[in-house]
Formats: sequence, C-alpha cells, structure tokens
Amino acid sequence: MPAVLEEFEPIFGEPKVEWTGTYSGLGQSSAFVFYVHSPDSSHLRICVSDFRHTTWESVCSVSQLEDMRDSVGIGGSWSEFIHYLVASIKSEDVKLLLEALPDSNDTKSAKLVAQKSKGMPRISFSLTKITGAAASDAVANLSQELFKAFKGLQYLFMEEQERCLQLTKLISVEKEKNEIFHSQLELNSKRQKLQKAINSLEKVDLTNGQNPPGKQAAQSPGPTKVTKRPVPTHRRAKARGIILQDSENEKDS
Amino acid sequence: MPAVLEEFEPIFGEPKVEWTGTYSGLGQSSAFVFYVHSPDSSHLRICVSDFRHTTWESVCSVSQLEDMRDSVGIGGSWSEFIHYLVASIKSEDVKLLLEALPDSNDTKSAKLVAQKSKGMPRISFSLTKITGAAASDAVANLSQELFKAFKGLQYLFMEEQERCLQLTKLISVEKEKNEIFHSQLELNSKRQKLQKAINSLEKVDLTNGQNPPGKQAAQSPGPTKVTKRPVPTHRRAKARGIILQDSENEKDS
Repeated sequence: MPAVLEEFEPIFGEPKVEWTGTYSGLGQSSAFVFYVHSPDSSHLRICVSDFRHTTWESVCSVSQLEDMRDSVGIGGSWSEFIHYLVASIKSEDVKLLLEALPDSNDTKSAKLVAQKSKGMPRISFSLTKITGAAASDAVANLSQELFKAFKGLQYLFMEEQERCLQLTKLISVEKEKNEIFHSQLELNSKRQKLQKAINSLEKVDLTNGQNPPGKQAAQSPGPTKVTKRPVPTHRRAKARGIILQDSENEKDS
Repeated sequence: MPAVLEEFEPIFGEPKVEWTGTYSGLGQSSAFVFYVHSPDSSHLRICVSDFRHTTWESVCSVSQLEDMRDSVGIGGSWSEFIHYLVASIKSEDVKLLLEALPDSNDTKSAKLVAQKSKGMPRISFSLTKITGAAASDAVANLSQELFKAFKGLQYLFMEEQERCLQLTKLISVEKEKNEIFHSQLELNSKRQKLQKAINSLEKVDLTNGQNPPGKQAAQSPGPTKVTKRPVPTHRRAKARGIILQDSENEKDS
C-alpha cells in the first residue's frame, strides 16, 4: 500500500526570520505566516507569506517526503515520520532562512526549517517564490483557510468552556455529597458515643442487682417482672397487722 | 467625560451576502470576512473583504456612533450601547447587503447590517469600496490581525484544556473521598447493628438475674461493688448461728 497523507490537519504558525548573505532590508518590518496543509492525499503544500510583498511556496509529493524521511534519518513507520514532521512544524523552533541576493532587494533562496527539539533531526523545505495572480491566489487561500481554522477553534474553545462549566458543577455536586457524608459520619460518631454512655449506665444499673423502679417500669412493664416485685409495704403491713392483732387479741382475750 | 472605545476586542466573522437590484454575479463564489476593531480610542473601523477582488471599509468616530445610538433607539449608557453593538456584530445574523449597479459588475452600495436577535434594533454601517494599495494594505492588515487572534485563541484554548484536566482530576479526588466516606458509613452502620445485637444479648443475660460469673468479674471487679454485695451465706450463717445457738443453749440449758 503506497504512503498517503490522510486527515492532515492544517497548521498555521509564525517562523523566525533569519537572513544569510548581504541582507538589504527586505521583509524587515514584515511578520511572516506559514500554512502547511495537504491539498490532496498525495501532496503536502507549504505556503509562507507576509500578506504584502512576499509569498513562497513548496509542494512535496509523498515520494519526495519518503526521500526526506530517508535523508533526515527518522526511523520507524510512515505515520511515525508524519507525526515527527507535524510535531516539528508545530514546535516553537520553526525558522524561515532567507539568503540575500547581492546588490538586490530580492532573495536568492528561502527555506522553512523545523526542529522538534534541540539535537533532533531538522525538517527542511526549499521554497519557491511566487508572484502575480498565483501569489494573490495563494495569499487569499491562506487567509480564507486561516479564517476557517479560527472559526473551528472558536467552536472548540466554546465547547471546552462549556465542559469546564459542567465539570465545575459536577465538583459542586461531589463536594455537597462529601459534606452530607461527612456530617452523617459526625452525627453517627456522636450517636455512638451517646449509645455507649447509655449502655454503660444500663450495665451499671443491671449489674447492681437493683433496678430503679421508674427505670424498670419504663423499660420492662411486662407482667413477668411484676411477679418479682416485693409486695407493697402498706399492703404487707396491713395484712400482717391485722393477723398479728387478731392473734394477739385471741391470745389476750 | 467624552465617550471612548476602551479595550475593544477585535471581532472577526462571516456575513451572509444578500444582493438587491440586478445582480450580475460579482462575489458569487467568494466568501467574505469582516473585521471590526478600534484603531484608536475614538474610532471604530469595519473592514469587509473576500481577500481577492473586493474590499470595503467604514470608519466611524465616537460622535458618529453617538448619533447612531440616538437613531437606532438604544437607551441606557454609552457602554450599554457598545455592549449591544458588540453583541449584534457577534450574533449569527450579520448581513452584507450589496446593491448591484445596473449593467455592471460593480456595486452601487454596500452595507454591513447586524441584529442581536429578531425584533431588536438593527446596527448598520455604510461601507466604502477601497482599491489599489489601500485595499492591499487593508487585506494584509486584516490577515495579520486574524493570525494574531488565532494565536491568542490557541493559547486560551490550551489554557481551557488544562483547566478541564485539572477539574477532572479534582473530581476524581472528590469522588475518592466520597467513596471513603461512603464505605466508612457502611462500616459504621454494620458496627452499630453488631453493637446493638451484643447489647441486647447482654441485657437479656443481666435482666435474667444471674450474671455469668466470668462476666461479672470482668466488668465490675472494683471494691465499691463488693461492699454492696450481700454477706456470703456461710459467713452470715456462722455469725448468726453462734448467737442463736448460745441463746438457745442458754434457754435450753
């Protein structure tokens, strides 16, 4: 299966401009923007412009990119090479190397050089200057695509903002749950302490053998307990008194 | 204090193109982009372009905007009017109204019309066509500013992504806390049930009158309890026995 460029997301960036040779001032005040995209699945296109006077272009076929992979010395699969290329172009270290043409405002050559990080292999594209209608078209295309990317990013940004909002709400819910759980735990702990205190009081009462009447009545009002109660003193006294008096009276009479 | 345009954040958007008069096909295939910004604190500038053939412009002074406020009929303060204007321009309903010039490819007039929502007052800017170097400059400026806005948005988007990541982590932490609390609550509930079962078993034992000797010893080995205990039967019997026996012996003897 031949190598292809599938779903290549356009990349926009600002290269650092570096001059070699006798620099005569061209582009000094201009900021350049590069645009790397895939016009079809078998080509990579690079366009660099200051939107004013100067526009460069480079179109690479997949087979040219395969040659680049070999010469750059990036091992691994085709997709790994494309990932490396994209990471390099998206890095902070992308340079527009311009070679000045002696005694002229023009450039002899231009290159876009990208390096993923220090010490890593450089990715380099030789650029061709374009002028007239081709340049106007390229710049118009760059701007239109930049606007599309901007709109897409605006949408993604709003989505992410919405996600943050939902996550913030979710955190509030979880924190609220936590508070409820926490106060439940505290309440339980208080209850447990209270229960322990009650239990130990009850044990003291019970192990003392004598149940306080009020407590006993409240806790076990069943008839089984009543049988164990001593006969009330007034009833006991009365009964005994009468019997004793009778017998005494009998003895006395 | 005169009204000013402070911290006016640039707005980029795509207007819907609507033709009036005999439309001869101009701009049919082109998408337009508008750019509304404040070049200084006393002017608002609108630039509309297809990045190819056609670019319009409108520059409004603050006093012209104040007149617009009166004619549009937006009450309230100056800043409220600016908020309304921004909301209208940022809305989905921004139109580029083009009036065709008879028998020509050119336009007689162009207007950018924005409406915050249906039934609300329209904000309208009459546009002037610009050509040549002025148009090139305006388009280059638009593109450069669009790139700046794109870069700024990229930064904000990454920040928002990072925020989402942090919030997601925070949710995990809160959920973990919740799980710990929840399992603590469950454990407590099990413990309480077990404690209740133990307590009721102990009560049954104690209220039955007989304390298991081992248990009693374990629970109340203190000397205070001992004093309350009845005198052991063998000692009681001995003491009483001697006295009784003596008196009995005395009587008997």
